[in-house]
Amino acid sequence: MMNPALRDAVYRANRRLAESGLVHGTFGNVSGVDRAAGVFLIKPSGVAYDALTPDGLVAVSLETGHAVGGDLRPSSDAPTHLEIYRGFDCGAVVHTHSRHATTLAQARLPLRCMGTTHADYFRGDVPVTRPMTPEEVEGAYEANTGLVIVETFRAGGLSPNEIPAVLVANHGPFTWGADAFEAVERAEVLEYLAEIEIGLRAIAPGAERPADVLVDRHYRRKHGPKAYYGQRQP
Amino acid sequence: MMNPALRDAVYRANRRLAESGLVHGTFGNVSGVDRAAGVFLIKPSGVAYDALTPDGLVAVSLETGHAVGGDLRPSSDAPTHLEIYRGFDCGAVVHTHSRHATTLAQARLPLRCMGTTHADYFRGDVPVTRPMTPEEVEGAYEANTGLVIVETFRAGGLSPNEIPAVLVANHGPFTWGADAFEAVERAEVLEYLAEIEIGLRAIAPGAERPADVLVDRHYRRKHGPKAYYGQRQP
Amino acid sequence: MMNPALRDAVYRANRRLAESGLVHGTFGNVSGVDRAAGVFLIKPSGVAYDALTPDGLVAVSLETGHAVGGDLRPSSDAPTHLEIYRGFDCGAVVHTHSRHATTLAQARLPLRCMGTTHADYFRGDVPVTRPMTPEEVEGAYEANTGLVIVETFRAGGLSPNEIPAVLVANHGPFTWGADAFEAVERAEVLEYLAEIEIGLRAIAPGAERPADVLVDRHYRRKHGPKAYYGQRQP
Amino acid sequence: MMNPALRDAVYRANRRLAESGLVHGTFGNVSGVDRAAGVFLIKPSGVAYDALTPDGLVAVSLETGHAVGGDLRPSSDAPTHLEIYRGFDCGAVVHTHSRHATTLAQARLPLRCMGTTHADYFRGDVPVTRPMTPEEVEGAYEANTGLVIVETFRAGGLSPNEIPAVLVANHGPFTWGADAFEAVERAEVLEYLAEIEIGLRAIAPGAERPADVLVDRHYRRKHGPKAYYGQRQP
Repeated sequence: MMNPALRDAVYRANRRLAESGLVHGTFGNVSGVDRAAGVFLIKPSGVAYDALTPDGLVAVSLETGHAVGGDLRPSSDAPTHLEIYRGFDCGAVVHTHSRHATTLAQARLPLRCMGTTHADYFRGDVPVTRPMTPEEVEGAYEANTGLVIVETFRAGGLSPNEIPAVLVANHGPFTWGADAFEAVERAEVLEYLAEIEIGLRAIAPGAERPADVLVDRHYRRKHGPKAYYGQRQP
Repeated sequence: MMNPALRDAVYRANRRLAESGLVHGTFGNVSGVDRAAGVFLIKPSGVAYDALTPDGLVAVSLETGHAVGGDLRPSSDAPTHLEIYRGFDCGAVVHTHSRHATTLAQARLPLRCMGTTHADYFRGDVPVTRPMTPEEVEGAYEANTGLVIVETFRAGGLSPNEIPAVLVANHGPFTWGADAFEAVERAEVLEYLAEIEIGLRAIAPGAERPADVLVDRHYRRKHGPKAYYGQRQP
Repeated sequence: MMNPALRDAVYRANRRLAESGLVHGTFGNVSGVDRAAGVFLIKPSGVAYDALTPDGLVAVSLETGHAVGGDLRPSSDAPTHLEIYRGFDCGAVVHTHSRHATTLAQARLPLRCMGTTHADYFRGDVPVTRPMTPEEVEGAYEANTGLVIVETFRAGGLSPNEIPAVLVANHGPFTWGADAFEAVERAEVLEYLAEIEIGLRAIAPGAERPADVLVDRHYRRKHGPKAYYGQRQP
Repeated sequence: MMNPALRDAVYRANRRLAESGLVHGTFGNVSGVDRAAGVFLIKPSGVAYDALTPDGLVAVSLETGHAVGGDLRPSSDAPTHLEIYRGFDCGAVVHTHSRHATTLAQARLPLRCMGTTHADYFRGDVPVTRPMTPEEVEGAYEANTGLVIVETFRAGGLSPNEIPAVLVANHGPFTWGADAFEAVERAEVLEYLAEIEIGLRAIAPGAERPADVLVDRHYRRKHGPKAYYGQRQP
């Protein structure tokens, strides 16, 4: 049986995504997983955010990738979410076509870690995937999108926990997190950072990177056993 | 007799256009056609959007191009809409001077198809018209604007159904669709894509295009007999 | 005796300017003139827009340049407005530091007429003034700013009626019009056009200008005896 | 005993900062000092702005740098604020990661004084700090950030009263002022100016600077014994 709090959390995260300005029309989607129950909940395909209800979220099996009950079809991106859940240890996935992150994805440029605002959330560059092959596009395209995302982290030796975001080449960003709220927050910060990166590339393409110690210091202020940001007890 | 639902649809689409931020002051206009009745309805010339009423919309004859009844003069762009209705099989036309699409029109650059966000709506580059000749400008300027739009598609071998938008050189964008709502949505997406394109040209002028198979895959997810996006029954 | 409608018109125009996003904090000001009464009304210096009242507007003599009655000091830019009223036949003046127009002023670049959106309002490039001399800055600076504006039009053979706007080098824009509403509308359109111009210069610095006939056609659609835009009787 | 008005002023300034759009999520902070009482009040670490209450502000000792009373931990940036209070004669400090100012900080470029809008608030370029050394980052990082800020002004012979802002390399902006309201206003103007500077660098990297007399004239219109802007009595 599915965690009863999940449906509400995923519903509210989809609404917050709509209010964030990161998605246009019916673009974008949020999902959240209950690994014990073996399902994830995702936005139905092509439904406007203001017509969305908690009951309209579609449950998809982690094992088969098929919808479980309900009348609505899941987001056409559901197989991408599925492969991210299979490949990474996370609780929620967000996909947007937010303007600045999509610009970088279309430029096939990573979102470089150029400052502490970035390092507070992502420990290093947010990578861009390789372009997909014609076979990958013409086959199980959405599942292959997820597989290319996972490959990008494995082949690059990157940690999906420390860098919980990716730019899919000529497509757009995906983020993930422990829960739907965190994954949406990261999608918002990613867009914020992408806007800064585009301005930076426009006026100072050769700008020097910050020292690794500065990136690590900021990342570890907020993450891991020595974090000292916020009100969490040490 | 005119379809009674058309007046309300065109009125609401004009209001939505005003709320979208795509038009400034009295710029821009939406029209919708009833081909059986032989007329299209269009915003009156120079009337502020918040002073617009459904009854204020002006009916224009598809045959003569003249206003049919009513006291108000149609938008000065009405002859452009007329030629689009004559040249293309569509139900509604939208014209804006939205910032980023107008920037591309002034640069005489097409809106290139550089990613899946574009391919979801437009199957290839949105073209820019050739500059109009002095004779075209000094003659029936607004009608000639429409004729140059139609020429751009015919001479380029482009499908106005698959690429339902154009940039008029040194002027601005026009979009069209099955109904006024769809045409406005396309004007919004066009502006969204134009903003991305301008950022892309600023930071990565030599960025590689996506593979044709990726464009086709995304376009066909949403359009045509094999569409699998949304809740439409297959 | 002053036209009783002027105070309300100038007050409402100042409020609209504040709501337009063109001014920040206490920046910017609107004035309107009553030439028969020999005074213009202007925003008081350094007063926040939401603390402004109609009675707070300061009357300034067209003859002496001094405030006439009232306890508040006029905007420190009042002498600039005065010289514009003396040099040009207009009913209202607006000054802002709006972002994109100010960017062009700091670049000492004119706002080129690159399309029909521009030609609908301004018949040619909006000029930028020459930099002021040290003597002009150290002397009656604000009055000299107005004199340099008037000089820019006279020396350049430009019509302040056909191009009712200027960029003061390293400072910002001024616009004028028949009344305060028209002058504010032109400040809004100027900012809109400046945003487009900055994008255009970023991605296509060598873009070709539109033909003169296109500029004239659009300008004369809205202005002069052969105007056919809007609902005015021909 | 602390000035009872300080808590409310710092609280309201933090709220205004949140409404200004300069901060994202829990980023950024405002503090205000009571030098007679030997403490400054600052936003607690990691608390969302809409969950902030006046009582939630944390008092920090100017002498020891430790929190004085209360259950919440101060902002992790509190040691930076402390060093600014020790080095500069000011009443409040603001830190943001606002988009455009952060872009300049990541480019390690100063915010140049290119016009009168800048000179109204800052008498010259807003400097960027040198990158911090690995020892400074790995040691008392936040205190060292404040020391590098103070060093930037001392080594550069700059007046923190006349240029009440700095860009910390690869980090973001800090501003200060007589009180929390003034420091927030300066953070807003700094972001406004940084947006203009980025556009200026994109389209006219070699633009000429304004004459020093123009900068001084505008600065002295608003500041010092000969100021004549606003309603203050001369």
